[in-house]
Amino acid sequence: MTPDPKAETIDWFAARPGEVAVDLPAQFDAGLYFIGRIRTPWTKREDCPKNAGESDAVCTIEVDPRYAKALDKVETCTHLIILYWMDRARRDLVVQTPRHYGEGRGSFALRSPVRPNPIALSVVQLLKVEGTTLSVKNIDCLDNTPLLDIKPYFASVDSKPDAQVGWHRDRNKG
Amino acid sequence: MTPDPKAETIDWFAARPGEVAVDLPAQFDAGLYFIGRIRTPWTKREDCPKNAGESDAVCTIEVDPRYAKALDKVETCTHLIILYWMDRARRDLVVQTPRHYGEGRGSFALRSPVRPNPIALSVVQLLKVEGTTLSVKNIDCLDNTPLLDIKPYFASVDSKPDAQVGWHRDRNKG
Repeated sequence: MTPDPKAETIDWFAARPGEVAVDLPAQFDAGLYFIGRIRTPWTKREDCPKNAGESDAVCTIEVDPRYAKALDKVETCTHLIILYWMDRARRDLVVQTPRHYGEGRGSFALRSPVRPNPIALSVVQLLKVEGTTLSVKNIDCLDNTPLLDIKPYFASVDSKPDAQVGWHRDRNKG
Repeated sequence: MTPDPKAETIDWFAARPGEVAVDLPAQFDAGLYFIGRIRTPWTKREDCPKNAGESDAVCTIEVDPRYAKALDKVETCTHLIILYWMDRARRDLVVQTPRHYGEGRGSFALRSPVRPNPIALSVVQLLKVEGTTLSVKNIDCLDNTPLLDIKPYFASVDSKPDAQVGWHRDRNKG
């Protein structure tokens, strides 16, 4: 598998002061299947909510009928972890300067779609399953975003109410 | 990108009663880079903890030095979301019969590594960052598992303490 050079060169040069790009490996190590699409009201990046908690819009997840049986018992879950592919994001930036923070930060300290593997994650509330279509709340991606995975959310291992992101908590201090 | 036929045919036939396999697409849709390795005490599948909360072992995440700068500010996080690649899992089963439940369930209702895209997810407690090595607790994978991504855990959007997985909650009733 060879990376698509076009995909890798879009926006190659760092766009904002302080941003740092690296050379990515010449080959991919593994391959992904798109298993469905996420349908949302947002067709332009600037219209998307800044984070998944910001919007109450009901969105739908359309799973490829090939995987219909994999949805058995999903309807018993109140919350799901959704993994999806940010196919328009550049992958080579290791330090980014998000507009609303104004200071460089490592990509692994951010939830930005820009990262070596642009897999995004949202914890959604499940409202309804009809056939291979799921209605959910709390997702923030562009309409037609490729779906990668659906997982049950287990509070026993996934919920950490006391977790802190220090740089974010302190960003308006001192 | 063409799937490796060998990888796709291992254990092709359903091994347990009630399991269902599907034909996977002929082509991958996107490619992943392995960005590091997860070092754990477990070298055989049967030694791994059943879930990430079950073990207090300190494990290390070794990030490829290429991405060193992407770790800036990660040390300010108490918890991280780790995505990794379950490279030994078959991808074609849509209904599985986990040994300890004894009944078929859809892959998307399970946290099993067996799924069309075998991306696993653990919420870990971060103990220490030294260079490109992270010490963490609460991960359950085999030694040398390929790393895909590191994300800060934001309690505001990621923590759902009241979430329920109905089939799991009810499995010992009636």
